[in-house]
Formats: sequence, structure tokens, C-alpha cells
Amino acid sequence: MLSKTQFDVSGERFTVSYLISDSDAEARARHLIVEQTIEFPEHLVPDDSIREHIIGRIERLASVSDAAAVVDVSYSAESSGFTLPQLLNLIFGNISLQPGVRVAEIKLPDSMLGLFKGPRFGRDGLRERVGEAEYPIFCTALKPMGLSSSSLAAQAAEYVNGGFHIIKDDHGLADQPTAPFRERVPRILDSVNEANARNGSSTLYVPSLNSPSERLVDDAKWAVELGAGGLMLLPGISGMDTMRRFAEDDDIAVPILAHPAMMGSYVSSPVSGMAHSVIFGQLSRLAGADATIFPNFGGRFSFLESECLEIAAQTVAPMANIKANFPAPGGGMRVENVPDMVRAYGRDVMFLVGGALHDGDEGVAARCENFISSVTEAIQADDRERRFTS
Amino acid sequence: MLSKTQFDVSGERFTVSYLISDSDAEARARHLIVEQTIEFPEHLVPDDSIREHIIGRIERLASVSDAAAVVDVSYSAESSGFTLPQLLNLIFGNISLQPGVRVAEIKLPDSMLGLFKGPRFGRDGLRERVGEAEYPIFCTALKPMGLSSSSLAAQAAEYVNGGFHIIKDDHGLADQPTAPFRERVPRILDSVNEANARNGSSTLYVPSLNSPSERLVDDAKWAVELGAGGLMLLPGISGMDTMRRFAEDDDIAVPILAHPAMMGSYVSSPVSGMAHSVIFGQLSRLAGADATIFPNFGGRFSFLESECLEIAAQTVAPMANIKANFPAPGGGMRVENVPDMVRAYGRDVMFLVGGALHDGDEGVAARCENFISSVTEAIQADDRERRFTS
Repeated sequence: MLSKTQFDVSGERFTVSYLISDSDAEARARHLIVEQTIEFPEHLVPDDSIREHIIGRIERLASVSDAAAVVDVSYSAESSGFTLPQLLNLIFGNISLQPGVRVAEIKLPDSMLGLFKGPRFGRDGLRERVGEAEYPIFCTALKPMGLSSSSLAAQAAEYVNGGFHIIKDDHGLADQPTAPFRERVPRILDSVNEANARNGSSTLYVPSLNSPSERLVDDAKWAVELGAGGLMLLPGISGMDTMRRFAEDDDIAVPILAHPAMMGSYVSSPVSGMAHSVIFGQLSRLAGADATIFPNFGGRFSFLESECLEIAAQTVAPMANIKANFPAPGGGMRVENVPDMVRAYGRDVMFLVGGALHDGDEGVAARCENFISSVTEAIQADDRERRFTS
Repeated sequence: MLSKTQFDVSGERFTVSYLISDSDAEARARHLIVEQTIEFPEHLVPDDSIREHIIGRIERLASVSDAAAVVDVSYSAESSGFTLPQLLNLIFGNISLQPGVRVAEIKLPDSMLGLFKGPRFGRDGLRERVGEAEYPIFCTALKPMGLSSSSLAAQAAEYVNGGFHIIKDDHGLADQPTAPFRERVPRILDSVNEANARNGSSTLYVPSLNSPSERLVDDAKWAVELGAGGLMLLPGISGMDTMRRFAEDDDIAVPILAHPAMMGSYVSSPVSGMAHSVIFGQLSRLAGADATIFPNFGGRFSFLESECLEIAAQTVAPMANIKANFPAPGGGMRVENVPDMVRAYGRDVMFLVGGALHDGDEGVAARCENFISSVTEAIQADDRERRFTS
């Protein structure tokens, strides 16, 4: 038996809803609240502050079937150490290693949300940056890997001419010899700046920041000083807290796009991992993404429409001081899908369109314009329909 | 259609074996080699260097059932950008978002292994540091969360007295008010150093490094300067490449332990994610872990004995210049399981024992000694049996 430990806490707590798939979900939940906190034989903990404030509390257990329940577990704010890495660890660290537990929702009190700055720009700030007040934002990617820096730069100019708001590196562009980071970023920036000056547009170029750990900060600051219009982070590779660090750094202060590379394993099982809305919605927003990229339904990935809409809902759900950000569905977007996408996401969305802008004889700029006008038309049609039916 | 792009490559390639669960695994594989590389309509790529060197190549497809095949895909070394973050992205970035694809094995040529330093100490170096030439290494954790820095320091002295080689922070100890990082590390170090001096032992104290991104490097260097005997990283939270960065930093130069927090989602589905041997074996070693912690079979986690042994096999499989590291099974280790563990892992293992050292009346130090001697006896019994049967 441990000696008694006494300490005070603020009383602030946060709640995690776990979907536990087990015929004895309550037993699994009792195990979970120990595994995620003291990771120590519970019977050796006396009736003290550790038992009271550290071990998680089962607040509610609601069966959803004979073999599954949603269990709300609360933890003291102090157990998070007031940092994102330990918050993530507390929510899902060890229990990720036990299949049958899925993080369904996280509820942080305002005091804990206040520890985070969230997206620096958010929806309003990003709309202002790209000069688009009410229609969707259009984002595309420079690709494929293997093109030279000057070819990528030329491609970027076509996207600007086509009226897209944001041009990002394909997430596979890292530091390959065909287009090294420090070579391609200035070339593409020059090209985008020239095209913007010519067209009177304000398209942003957003390099992908997937540098080795020791170069991340230098590469980010260098790109921003050169004039990069944002940075794309890959939190599944560099860590969710690395994205937060960049989003909160006043010396960087550009919009942050979050790419979902490597994060699919969190959502690929319906009974393990995390809900789409948690990892691509709540956590991505908490960690400062101004736009959260995820695979759209109906494309070449397996996300359901409902899962995409749950992500989108979390980009704007009330989160105290944390600004709303943009859902950024992408992956196999085609003009033919535009009406479905508009119906699903409405106006407050960043559409990420890639390969489809290259497929056809009209040229890239014309296809960009065509995509944008098909969205505009679909929105106007949607508006008319709403007015008609309301 | 893109214009033709021509460039030279070294010809060095690496191979990823994917388990693809699909009745048309070949079609999925053809999609994969595009998704993971050009992410662009393949019919728009002319007969050029991008087609030849960037798109992955299907080297072999072996059906394992009507609905699954192992597909070996090779990529040019250049596509990795010669960095770990892009290597991870290339192996599994986007395809992680499509259930039914599991990374089964990675084969890097010596030229690519040579880009990485791997574990600085490895098995031999760590054995030397802790003064244990041939028997297993014993590691334990300071816990539970909620204890004060001085209670943790007192607990550490008991572990030293009990003869354990490595004492790490529980992975949940971050920067909580009960034992802040900068308070607990020096207190625990003092306590361990004193006990070592008294006993003539060389037990290492290994703090858990789960600091916010902007503090990671400073916290690591500070702890090492104070005399920390190693650092425990949580690559599932801070990123695999962050661990590599610390392992390769000559100003840090202490043994690195890798903790599996948040990484369970990669292995929880048998048809998606990554094989246990890849993420906890190959990648952890490549990224410089001197010991790779994973949940032992027969404990409170669901890993099978075969999965644990596949991890262990990868800690010592030939990897050119990369040193062998220690498999470090943990999680619900009990004296009763020792014979099974010894039979499974042999001598070259780090046993991570936690709560079990506290359960009983003999006191922590006595239970440590008891655990160690039960392992020693099991190994000697095993040796006798081998001699007898050989």
C-alpha cells in the first residue's frame, strides 16, 4: 500500500467519451480509468488525493448494444499537465494499445481551452487573407513529385490564373533532389507573386513542411520570411503538438493547413482508435490548424459522408476562445461531384482539388475556372432551392 | 498530359511489403503505387522519368487467400528525400487512410540504412552502461502520477536498492503540479546517485520527455547535463523523427527508450495499419531507440506472443550499420510469468516491470530482488534444459 498523498486541485475536469466494444463495458471502463492515469494496482492506492483526483471517473455509461457502451470518463485538468502532449497521452496513450476502445468525443472546459490559441486566422482570418468573403475557398496542390522546381513554379502560375485561392505543395514534396525545399519555395513564390501582381489576385503559396525534426523550425521561419502564405504540417508524422507550436509562434504567424498523412490508422477501425470528428475535427482545431484536410466522401478514400460531416461540424462547434477553422475535403474531387459537395458542406469549406484540374484539353487555368464556376452555380442553385422550399 | 520530365537517379530502391486485403489485390496495388507517389492521374504522365522512377513498382504479388495478397512495392531511394519523415510518408502516408492495407515489412538497402545512425548504444552499449553483461536488463517505472517529486525520489532509491538497472518515469509523468519536470528530475537524480554510491551500482534514471514541442530540446539537454542516464521518448505523440533527432544528437548522447503511447492504433486491426514488427521493431530501431517498449503477451494488453516475438526478432535482424537494440516488453509483468517470458525472449531483453513490484508485504527492494532472482533462476533452468536436450 502507498502512503497517503494529499494535494489540492482546481476542481476543473474534462471529459472523454469512449466507445467501448465489450460485453462487459463497465469492467473495461474501470480498467481504463486506471490504465490511463496511475497505471498501478488500484488496491494499493489508499483513500487519498491520488484516488480522488488522479484516477479517472466514470461519469456515465450508456449501452448502445449488448456488446458496446459509450462511457464518459472525466479527468482532473491537472492530470493533463496543461500541455497538449500529455493531454493526448491521458486521453488515449496506453489504451490505444487495447483494441475495442474508441475515442468518440472530447469535452474540455473553457479554462482548458484557454490554454490553447487554436487557429490564428480561422475562417474569418483566412477569408480575409485570400479575399473571399462568402463562397468556398479553393485550394490545390503542386504535383506530381518528380517535377522540377521550375515546372512546379510554372504550374503554380496556372493555378493563380485559374483563380484558386491557395496553392500548396503536394504532401509528398519534401526535399527530393528533383525539387529541393530551399530551391522550390523561392521559385514558386516568385511565380505566384508575379501572377498575383499581373492578375490583382492574392493567392497564397503554402509549402509543405515535412522536414527532419532539427530543421523544422528553421525551414518554417525561412519560408515565412521569404513570403510563404502559409505552412502545411503533417501532424501524423511530425506530431500534433508540433503543429500547435507552429500555429502559436508569433514569429511565424501564417495560416496552417493540416494534412492527414499517416493518421488513417486512427480511424480505420470502427471500434478502435478515434472518431474522425475527434482527430480531424476537435484535435486538429485545438492544435491550431486553420484548415483541416481530410479525404472526401465519394472520392478514392473510404470516408463516409456522415464522417466527413461530423468533422465539418467540429470545425465550427463552440470551443470558447478557439476560432472556427475550415474543413478541407480533398482526394478525388471532380466537377461531377460538386453538387453533392455543395449540398453537404455549404459555403464554409475549403475545397482541395488536385489531379482533376489537369485532366482535359482546356488547360489548367480554364479547368480551375470551370471548377470554381461549377461550385458558384451549385451554391446559387442551392440558395434558390432553399428560398423556394422555405 | 504533362510534358516529359527527364532526370537521373541512383538506381537504389527500397521495398515495402503490403498485406492488401481485397479480392482484387492487384488493382488495389496499382492504385497504391500511384497514391503513395505522384497522387495524380496516371494516364496524364508520359513515358518519362516520373513514370519510371517516381511511381512505385509492383515487384511481386503473392496471394495469401481469395481476398488478400502480400504485394512487394519498390520505390526509388530519391523519393524518400533521404529523410525519415518523407520515408514514413512514402511508406504509409495517404494509404493509411484506406482500410485494408497493412505494412508488413520494410527492406531498405544498405545505402539508405547508412543515412541513419540508429541506436547510439544498442544492446552492447546499454549492457556496458548498466554493468550487466549477459542476463536480462531490468527496468521499472516511477509511479503513480500524483506522487510528489520527493516520494518519487524515495521510490527510486528503493528500486536501486533492489538492483534494477534502469528506472524511468512513468510515461504519464509530464509537467503536472504534483511533480513538475524541472523539480522532479534533479530530486530523483540525487536520490538515484546517492543510492548508487552507497551500493556501488550504476542504475540509470531515465526521465520521460513528453514536453511541449518548443521545450523538448531544452528539457532534454537540461536533463542530460544534470546527469540523466537516458531519455524516454513517446514517438506516437512527439513523432518518430523527433526520437531520431534526439538519438542522433551528440550533445545528448544518452540511451533512448521508446514508449508506445498512442501507437496502438497502428496495430489494432489485422488488415490495416502496420505490423507490430514494423512499427515497434524496424522503425523504432531505425529511429534510434536503444530499447523499444511494447505490451507483453499474457499481460493486460492484447498482443500475441507471436507478435511480441516478431518485434524481438527485428531488434536484432541484420540492418547494416544499425546496432541491435533491446526489446522491452512490459505491462502486467508478474513473477508468475517469468518462466514464459524467459522461454520467449531469452537473455537479450529488457524486462519492464511496474506495479507488480509494489504488491506485497516484503517491500519494494525485496520484490525487485525477488523478480531478478526468479529471472536468473528461470534462465539457468532453461540453460540446463537446453544442455540436457541437445
